Amino acid sequence: MKKVLLKHQHIEKFFYHICRKLKIPKLEIQNLSNSLIGSSLRGVDSHGIGLFPHYVMNIEEGSINNKPKMKFINKMPSVGLIDADNGFGHSASYLAAKHAVKIARKNGIAIVGIFNSTHHGASGAYSLEIAKNDCIGLCFTHGDAFAIPFNGVSKFHGTNPYSFSAPIDKKNKILVDFASTSIPWHKVRAAQTANKKLSKNVALDKNGKFTNNPNLAKFLSPLGGELFGHKGFGLASSIEILCGPFLALPHSYKIIPMMGPDFKTFRNLGHVIIAISIDAITSKKQYFKHMSNYINDLKKQKPKNDLKIFYPGQKEFDEEKIRRKNGIPLDKKLYKEFLELDNKFKLNLF
Amino acid sequence: MKKVLLKHQHIEKFFYHICRKLKIPKLEIQNLSNSLIGSSLRGVDSHGIGLFPHYVMNIEEGSINNKPKMKFINKMPSVGLIDADNGFGHSASYLAAKHAVKIARKNGIAIVGIFNSTHHGASGAYSLEIAKNDCIGLCFTHGDAFAIPFNGVSKFHGTNPYSFSAPIDKKNKILVDFASTSIPWHKVRAAQTANKKLSKNVALDKNGKFTNNPNLAKFLSPLGGELFGHKGFGLASSIEILCGPFLALPHSYKIIPMMGPDFKTFRNLGHVIIAISIDAITSKKQYFKHMSNYINDLKKQKPKNDLKIFYPGQKEFDEEKIRRKNGIPLDKKLYKEFLELDNKFKLNLF
Repeated sequence: MKKVLLKHQHIEKFFYHICRKLKIPKLEIQNLSNSLIGSSLRGVDSHGIGLFPHYVMNIEEGSINNKPKMKFINKMPSVGLIDADNGFGHSASYLAAKHAVKIARKNGIAIVGIFNSTHHGASGAYSLEIAKNDCIGLCFTHGDAFAIPFNGVSKFHGTNPYSFSAPIDKKNKILVDFASTSIPWHKVRAAQTANKKLSKNVALDKNGKFTNNPNLAKFLSPLGGELFGHKGFGLASSIEILCGPFLALPHSYKIIPMMGPDFKTFRNLGHVIIAISIDAITSKKQYFKHMSNYINDLKKQKPKNDLKIFYPGQKEFDEEKIRRKNGIPLDKKLYKEFLELDNKFKLNLF
Repeated sequence: MKKVLLKHQHIEKFFYHICRKLKIPKLEIQNLSNSLIGSSLRGVDSHGIGLFPHYVMNIEEGSINNKPKMKFINKMPSVGLIDADNGFGHSASYLAAKHAVKIARKNGIAIVGIFNSTHHGASGAYSLEIAKNDCIGLCFTHGDAFAIPFNGVSKFHGTNPYSFSAPIDKKNKILVDFASTSIPWHKVRAAQTANKKLSKNVALDKNGKFTNNPNLAKFLSPLGGELFGHKGFGLASSIEILCGPFLALPHSYKIIPMMGPDFKTFRNLGHVIIAISIDAITSKKQYFKHMSNYINDLKKQKPKNDLKIFYPGQKEFDEEKIRRKNGIPLDKKLYKEFLELDNKFKLNLF
């Protein structure tokens, strides 16, 4: 299936004009675009521009507020809270990152919670935003249930991702961003489309038995699988506690599924963002010196066969260079959806 | 091999008298005992009382300072640093937890770094200490290299554990505490002793090839294994950055091995502790209400076959009840080591 390449500026323009027709304020559009296009540029297609048609439908149906009035509330000296007013989680998360950095610069560390939120794309986008501002960033979210508990047979936790980003030098960043399940749900859907089998012991059927048939897969196994899945389960639980009970929000198991059938009700998701100033303990100079030693030693490690060792995020940033130049590849299904939106909103951009 | 059961009070007395003969201050002894005996009571034998003979040797050889002057330094409003003066990492970590809680109560969140430290046992002990004080606790450490980088063939990261603890109610806590490798190095040594095979794809031989023979195992695979090991590697990297570069300390790859041959040089380990007040965003009442919903929903989940679903740490706290009553089991090797120490220090406690 041949892919269509679109320049990121073209996609940004396309998003902008559709969002304006949906009465979405300019800042929200910019944040949404930055998150989705940023993820797609880094090759994270599961959390990039492919989500846009879904969000447009959410706006039209009512589960995302097109005109949110987001509020930042300072709770304690190093703590903030954002009421996302059911607008784009992406916009609320960038706003939270901004406030977290501001507080971290003053107090060394900050935590900002977000409630009344919606899907925010890739959590790593906001950790990365923090790392762009000389801080170490962590961002967590929960979501509707996909992962079985360790020793369980049906879904309980979301794919609750762990994300972390830190500056390496003035230009480069580490970016860790992974679901606490072995694979994200998107990989199941991609395998269905491509008619391919799943890896062993990553997905389970309706009876809670492992299956590599993506059409039978209903649930995901926590990272670590059958033997070590208590680790992925524990990680997911810690993220759940921060994004649920700590924010006084329902936990994953009670969250309305992203994929419907109800697209009219606000999902009330929670996210948590932490920023730590890189010079909170020593100095920028010391931090960068030791980061440089760490990365240089990693680069000296011998890889297996003809493989390559990357620092976390390196592969994605390499991909970004290519996609910024050549464009972002869209599969036929997504390109068709873009054409339909273009037609529906009478844009004539394609 | 029959095990010997010793009451925890008996072990505490034994530790106390040996440590006093080694001129260790009373507070240090108490903290060391709390950490090691606490871990053993919870069934975490790899990080419990079994480490004591090793630490005694460290004190005698010089790699642990028996008379440390630990200092707490307030760096920024929500940041602290502890100079552990090469004393027990356990004592420094409890001290860090105490200060982190104090700051978190005032500012909502706190981060405390520890440098000039030594092995601190199970990181979860200090996350748990924070959770006992109405805060959410996170504690991280690095250590000498065991884990290969993703796509690598030789050791680079420590087993860099992730630990998290949070109150469930007035009495119970969640405790997540796991190595970012599939198995900790201790399991390799236990398999050597028991002449048992290792699980598949968790350990590698000197050539970087997977082996299930514990006698050939030299390195560990990051959590997630061959297909998803980028996740364990990413988690380890984030912990490394906090415990190394952020504290201006060397990273795992440069740390003197715990198991020698050099037992004379200070290892200069780093740990990081974060405390978040549970009412920083809403209120204790709201937090506990939502935690109760979360745990109750988890308890309602159907388990696989005749297995049981536990919340993270539940199994360990259940074990604690049994071991507090019946005693802590010691294998013959450890019991022999205890007898030798008893004899060497002329205690006559056994």
